[in-house]
Amino acid sequence: MRIIILGGDGYLGWPTAMHFAARGCEVLAVDNYMRRNIARETSSEALVEAPNLVDRAEAFEEITGKKIQVEIGDCCDYRFMERIFRDFKPTVCIHYAEQPSAPYSMKGYEEARRTLDNNLAVTFNTIWAVKEQAPDCHIVKLGTMGEYGTPPIDIEEGYIDIKHNGREGRFLFPRQAGSLYHTTKVLDTDLIWFYVRTYGLEVTDLMQGPVYGLSTDEADQDDRLLPNFHYDDIFGTVVNRFLVQAVAGIPLTVYGKGGQVRGYLNLKDTLQCVELAANNPPGKGQLRIFNQFTETFSVNQLAEEVKKAGAVVGLKVEVKSIPNPRKELEEHYYNPKHSGLTELGLKPHHMTTEVLVEMLKKIMTYKDQIVPARVLPRVVWNK
Amino acid sequence: MRIIILGGDGYLGWPTAMHFAARGCEVLAVDNYMRRNIARETSSEALVEAPNLVDRAEAFEEITGKKIQVEIGDCCDYRFMERIFRDFKPTVCIHYAEQPSAPYSMKGYEEARRTLDNNLAVTFNTIWAVKEQAPDCHIVKLGTMGEYGTPPIDIEEGYIDIKHNGREGRFLFPRQAGSLYHTTKVLDTDLIWFYVRTYGLEVTDLMQGPVYGLSTDEADQDDRLLPNFHYDDIFGTVVNRFLVQAVAGIPLTVYGKGGQVRGYLNLKDTLQCVELAANNPPGKGQLRIFNQFTETFSVNQLAEEVKKAGAVVGLKVEVKSIPNPRKELEEHYYNPKHSGLTELGLKPHHMTTEVLVEMLKKIMTYKDQIVPARVLPRVVWNK
Repeated sequence: MRIIILGGDGYLGWPTAMHFAARGCEVLAVDNYMRRNIARETSSEALVEAPNLVDRAEAFEEITGKKIQVEIGDCCDYRFMERIFRDFKPTVCIHYAEQPSAPYSMKGYEEARRTLDNNLAVTFNTIWAVKEQAPDCHIVKLGTMGEYGTPPIDIEEGYIDIKHNGREGRFLFPRQAGSLYHTTKVLDTDLIWFYVRTYGLEVTDLMQGPVYGLSTDEADQDDRLLPNFHYDDIFGTVVNRFLVQAVAGIPLTVYGKGGQVRGYLNLKDTLQCVELAANNPPGKGQLRIFNQFTETFSVNQLAEEVKKAGAVVGLKVEVKSIPNPRKELEEHYYNPKHSGLTELGLKPHHMTTEVLVEMLKKIMTYKDQIVPARVLPRVVWNK
Repeated sequence: MRIIILGGDGYLGWPTAMHFAARGCEVLAVDNYMRRNIARETSSEALVEAPNLVDRAEAFEEITGKKIQVEIGDCCDYRFMERIFRDFKPTVCIHYAEQPSAPYSMKGYEEARRTLDNNLAVTFNTIWAVKEQAPDCHIVKLGTMGEYGTPPIDIEEGYIDIKHNGREGRFLFPRQAGSLYHTTKVLDTDLIWFYVRTYGLEVTDLMQGPVYGLSTDEADQDDRLLPNFHYDDIFGTVVNRFLVQAVAGIPLTVYGKGGQVRGYLNLKDTLQCVELAANNPPGKGQLRIFNQFTETFSVNQLAEEVKKAGAVVGLKVEVKSIPNPRKELEEHYYNPKHSGLTELGLKPHHMTTEVLVEMLKKIMTYKDQIVPARVLPRVVWNK
């Protein structure tokens, strides 16, 4: 496989690049450092400063003997995209190149506009670069479970059969997201769905839940290869954030009642899922959608799990509810299906106490780099 | 009412501006001439060249004594939007400012990107300008019946109740459009729906069918006040195009089997519908959706109606099927509901032979300005 990874410097992108390169694929990692720039602009840098993408790739080659090609450029610029797709001729394109922070997208006009413009333009350019330069390339796009929101009915994998007035049809499952960031992924899905129907593209759209973890087979070999581990309110996903709070002695901040249920997965399982998708393309003219998570937890349950793991390593973990900065239901029905990736062979890494303990131990080695001011919510959209 | 009309130079925008100004409203018409520019770039100029927007407004004032304010500027530029919303303080914003041509949006990368960028950015800026500068302003947004496509189930007005596995919820009616232009309106709806839920905006989204006509109470007073009447493949809607073909002695070009059914309305009814929407706001935090058309026809039926009207004025009209340049079903179920605007008081102007004859007579006075090369499809997306 010749794999192009858009957003190859990101929390998922970099581990994905290493994962495929370690398995003998030709890998081109593409990034414009937008996330690093936003992290600096919002004082939300990762726990461990990562070398830049070129240096990371060099370190990876030094350690493993495997190569990751790098292109630094803006995927919103079609001239750039045309060139890299024409020259690299990917068979798979993994598209992670989006502004991924919900709070950032809700901060103000500039942040919202940047999120909308970037995310839509990259998806649009990916579609066109594939259509014009690599028409047999399978696009593996990262969506989010957040596209569905928290509807009162069971969430199917991407589509739903609707019976209405004695007739029936199959449609995209209705989407209704809770932040502008999540909404841009709804728009992505609509856009991709149109072009798949019109030009016969081959796409897998992965509706992923929040990811946690900083360990992968490759990252474990050297701290220079660590993923960008964020614990701040802008980029930190909830489990990662709670673990850092536990280490820093800050009470775990549960937003509101803490009854928000989501589907979570280990970073290692993101890699597995993406690989399964890449190895099993859906066929031309198909938009295949998987719900990508392995288990569901409420925020209160997560806090309990982190507390339990903390006790193992001697941390006294407190849990504290704070006013919810987000506009979301704090108690709701939630029953999303997720059998598609399991059927392809996914073997989940569950969120055991052992897994959380290993994460805590790693974070403790970087304890003095934690900046507590970055943990509490700085963006509020639940007026 | 203080009404801002985005896209105030357009086929609908200009008659709308006159309509409200004639009824005593304060009207600000805003445009950047994008449509005129695209018309020139694609050799698709209107049948009658209209004075520019400032000159049109002057002519209107000279003829009627009523004033239409004008601002020329780009609604994608938020600085411009902020200023006009802050200064004009609209109570209603009618948003027509989109690239409205399906064929143009399917022509190539540049045309598609321009359509996507413009349409999304204007909608986004409209939301923010209202939120920040005129929070009590009711947004009346022009959507399209094309958002729904031609699903195998009855089309409700915007929303549908879905029963699934013993539970039930209300959702946006699933959308699945047939061109990139129509898809940008799907994205608009998703975007507006998110911001309505989050910030309590007040929006009416009008899913309009194809419009025909060049007569309105105001336009009838002087040919300088005529709407932009397009008969080309890029901007010409099907009825207008057929009427010009009839006058020019070109066979009416039915795309494929001609069984495509759509909901149509007279330009006069667009004005009525928009006025009814403006006079009856839905309430804060509401996204109200109406299906805006008065009667449905297949393309073959339209051709027959035009033929009948042609006979009245002595035109021998031929009808000819040509390969369909579009990707669409040519025979399909179609049952869209449209009771909302009727309940508000809409009195339809139906597509009678008399109405078509009046249009033919008007077009005949401009017969020597018809450029036949503009009528046949120049963009194909049904490979």
